[in-house]
Amino acid sequence: MLRRESTKRELIGNEGMVLLDMIRRLNRRSATGHLLKLIEKTHPADTAWIFRHLTEKERSEIFSIIAQTKMIGEFLSELDDAIMVLLVQQLTPQYMANVIADMASDDAADILEAIPEELADEIRKYMEKKDLEEVEGLLQYHPESAGGLMSPDFLSLEEYLTVDESIAIIQQKSEELEMVFYLYITHNDGKLAGVISLRQLLMNSPKRKLKDIMNPHVISVSTDTDQGEVAHVVSQYNILAVPVVDSAYNLVGIVTVDDIIDVIREEATEEFLQMAGAGKDREILLKSTIDSAALRAPWLFASWIGGVMAMIIIGTFEHELSQVLALASFIPIVMGMGGNIATQSSTIIVRGMATGRVNMSALWNVIFKEMRVGVLLGVLYGLFLGVLAYFVHHEPKLLGVVVGLSIFGSMVMAATIGTVIPLILKRFGIDAAIATGPFVTTAIDIVGVLMYFYVAKMLLGL
Amino acid sequence: MLRRESTKRELIGNEGMVLLDMIRRLNRRSATGHLLKLIEKTHPADTAWIFRHLTEKERSEIFSIIAQTKMIGEFLSELDDAIMVLLVQQLTPQYMANVIADMASDDAADILEAIPEELADEIRKYMEKKDLEEVEGLLQYHPESAGGLMSPDFLSLEEYLTVDESIAIIQQKSEELEMVFYLYITHNDGKLAGVISLRQLLMNSPKRKLKDIMNPHVISVSTDTDQGEVAHVVSQYNILAVPVVDSAYNLVGIVTVDDIIDVIREEATEEFLQMAGAGKDREILLKSTIDSAALRAPWLFASWIGGVMAMIIIGTFEHELSQVLALASFIPIVMGMGGNIATQSSTIIVRGMATGRVNMSALWNVIFKEMRVGVLLGVLYGLFLGVLAYFVHHEPKLLGVVVGLSIFGSMVMAATIGTVIPLILKRFGIDAAIATGPFVTTAIDIVGVLMYFYVAKMLLGL
Repeated sequence: MLRRESTKRELIGNEGMVLLDMIRRLNRRSATGHLLKLIEKTHPADTAWIFRHLTEKERSEIFSIIAQTKMIGEFLSELDDAIMVLLVQQLTPQYMANVIADMASDDAADILEAIPEELADEIRKYMEKKDLEEVEGLLQYHPESAGGLMSPDFLSLEEYLTVDESIAIIQQKSEELEMVFYLYITHNDGKLAGVISLRQLLMNSPKRKLKDIMNPHVISVSTDTDQGEVAHVVSQYNILAVPVVDSAYNLVGIVTVDDIIDVIREEATEEFLQMAGAGKDREILLKSTIDSAALRAPWLFASWIGGVMAMIIIGTFEHELSQVLALASFIPIVMGMGGNIATQSSTIIVRGMATGRVNMSALWNVIFKEMRVGVLLGVLYGLFLGVLAYFVHHEPKLLGVVVGLSIFGSMVMAATIGTVIPLILKRFGIDAAIATGPFVTTAIDIVGVLMYFYVAKMLLGL
Repeated sequence: MLRRESTKRELIGNEGMVLLDMIRRLNRRSATGHLLKLIEKTHPADTAWIFRHLTEKERSEIFSIIAQTKMIGEFLSELDDAIMVLLVQQLTPQYMANVIADMASDDAADILEAIPEELADEIRKYMEKKDLEEVEGLLQYHPESAGGLMSPDFLSLEEYLTVDESIAIIQQKSEELEMVFYLYITHNDGKLAGVISLRQLLMNSPKRKLKDIMNPHVISVSTDTDQGEVAHVVSQYNILAVPVVDSAYNLVGIVTVDDIIDVIREEATEEFLQMAGAGKDREILLKSTIDSAALRAPWLFASWIGGVMAMIIIGTFEHELSQVLALASFIPIVMGMGGNIATQSSTIIVRGMATGRVNMSALWNVIFKEMRVGVLLGVLYGLFLGVLAYFVHHEPKLLGVVVGLSIFGSMVMAATIGTVIPLILKRFGIDAAIATGPFVTTAIDIVGVLMYFYVAKMLLGL
């Protein structure tokens, strides 16, 4: 939800560390009164940040103080899920039901979704029917859809109201509502009709009807729109909130820009981890060693397979290797240069697709461009290495040519594969960020080593 | 700047491609009238998106139509710089001066900064003194600071005004101003005093003074605050805009959340490219082949150096290699597994630092955790490979042990180096994303190969 507009001054870098130290020290001295005062002066988002840097024992002790303040709800919604899930088990289900009742219903739904089902069911028993229905209504949507992101606590006005009637409604109601900067306007059947900003409302004469002054071309998303697309809409059109409609175009909620910022950050983090083959759990740093290893093992398996294939291929060239032992020395550089230029190409393409910068209607241009870059860089580093190899190993005479050509070939091939694989994955509707890493590295390992030994065999006449 | 609230429905995926096709077709048929109508119905941000997917000739032709509409200013500010810079050269400096005069001054400053200096100077000659001064005032700040991001077109009210006086001012002025959802309040010397939202204003009685109803704890940033920190403040506290003050705490501008979204996206893209050693120019896809190669060459040089060192190291083990030729087959897998787990670790750490999830006060815990993950995964894949090697190569008997141990050692070492290097870089104030890639890969190449041959030499008694 969008918070109240005003808080203390910012908490950046050092200020955060100072606050962390103070909280730790007060806790060590069991100075509960001072600690309570300090926490009440601190923004819940900052307290949540501090919690990342505490030990489990400290978290538990300080949480028992926060649990007694009115901030508990906002604090819980700011915490990383992995930490939140552990802490709420300190509270009774009855107490949690009260906390949740005071929270914005989208935040309440997020919490009920994250905690163990058993506990969530216990809490539900103590919730009031009205609150529960609102939360359950939100939980029916996929958490990564507009329905899962939206808040149902918004203000909508019917189109036949006048300006001064609208202002009166806002003055009565707005305290508990989100984002009353845009006022969404419905036909009397609840279908979305238009939008007007609070400021535009104020600039019209009191007796005009909303119908006549609203903007009917309102941007909206539907409940099942993917959160990435919602983020795209909000950032493409620079708006502060977007209304969410159901399949009958009834207005059912709004998604505010602060939630969109979280989506953008989270999706970037997931994309980073996926490209590095480290799963997509953005709280991986908070996971146990075993869980972290389990998230990372699959991609390493793909790379292990690539390595085994390279091993088999090199094995078949044992004869050639025994004739020119120096060939072995160049294996790392031939494969490394290929792997690295492939990483560059695939990162540029995957990120380019994510930011809409890859021209999907001119894919050949994109591919040829990367190939040309591969040729340029391949010639450069192939020459460097060829000349170096010639001076280091005088025999066989052509060794410099072999390694130079292999670097060249491996880099051109790697740039091409690194570009083509994400594009193909995308065409087949597969998330390019997830699968690109393993496919690309495995392919490069195999093709690179094959090319190198083949060139050596040909040119050296082995 | 923050745009008007309302536009057409969203443009996502297919809808964008359909629009692209229509625009292309109308342009091919030189149907200028229809094209003009279509463009006027399209949001400038969408038209800018379309331009990424046009040829240079198409861009030039369609731009000559857009240049005649009122949308030209907003369109230019939505374009990627690389495209914008080429197109504005089609217009006369005098015409551009008019276009710029109608733009928000932060957008105008961005354009004058991006185009060639000569052209900018020409345009300046035709600008009115008042506009020019405002733009020049913005250009004095670093483009990646709050001063470079902020808009000076905001509404500020003095603290002695009453609620109804304030509303009257808003009704008169707000058309040309940004973000009148928060009203910033100053003392009569221009220093920032507090904030109130437009909604809160409406909920107070008309005769109260702003001084008595404002929130004096206003979050602000200073003109030289880095844009990443501004983004952190806005997203940490879920606010829609943040006021910018100069060194004397005078209110000089505001940064709105839509600009923050751009900053977050841009910084994520830059971090992606840097981690892959592909420079940090987020418009790299729009660059020429030569420029793209030049941006990517330096990191490849680091990896080339690593490869050459590996070559030299393997050269010194020529005797051992000649005894057990099979050792060569395992070079790719030993190095690959090390390189890949290092990429995982360093990505997790670099991204963790960017999102504030790395516990900087318990670095040893972070490092030991990654080492434990390295041990787990090293045992797993070391065993896999050791057993496989034993069955593939019966002689020498210990070869399986050698490669198993080497995979294990290389993965533990790589996870550690991949964790420690970004942490060290950060400690020395070096941007971890830029430097981690080259340092880590070079280090892993060298240490990995050295460890492998040393283990082989010891265990096989060569």
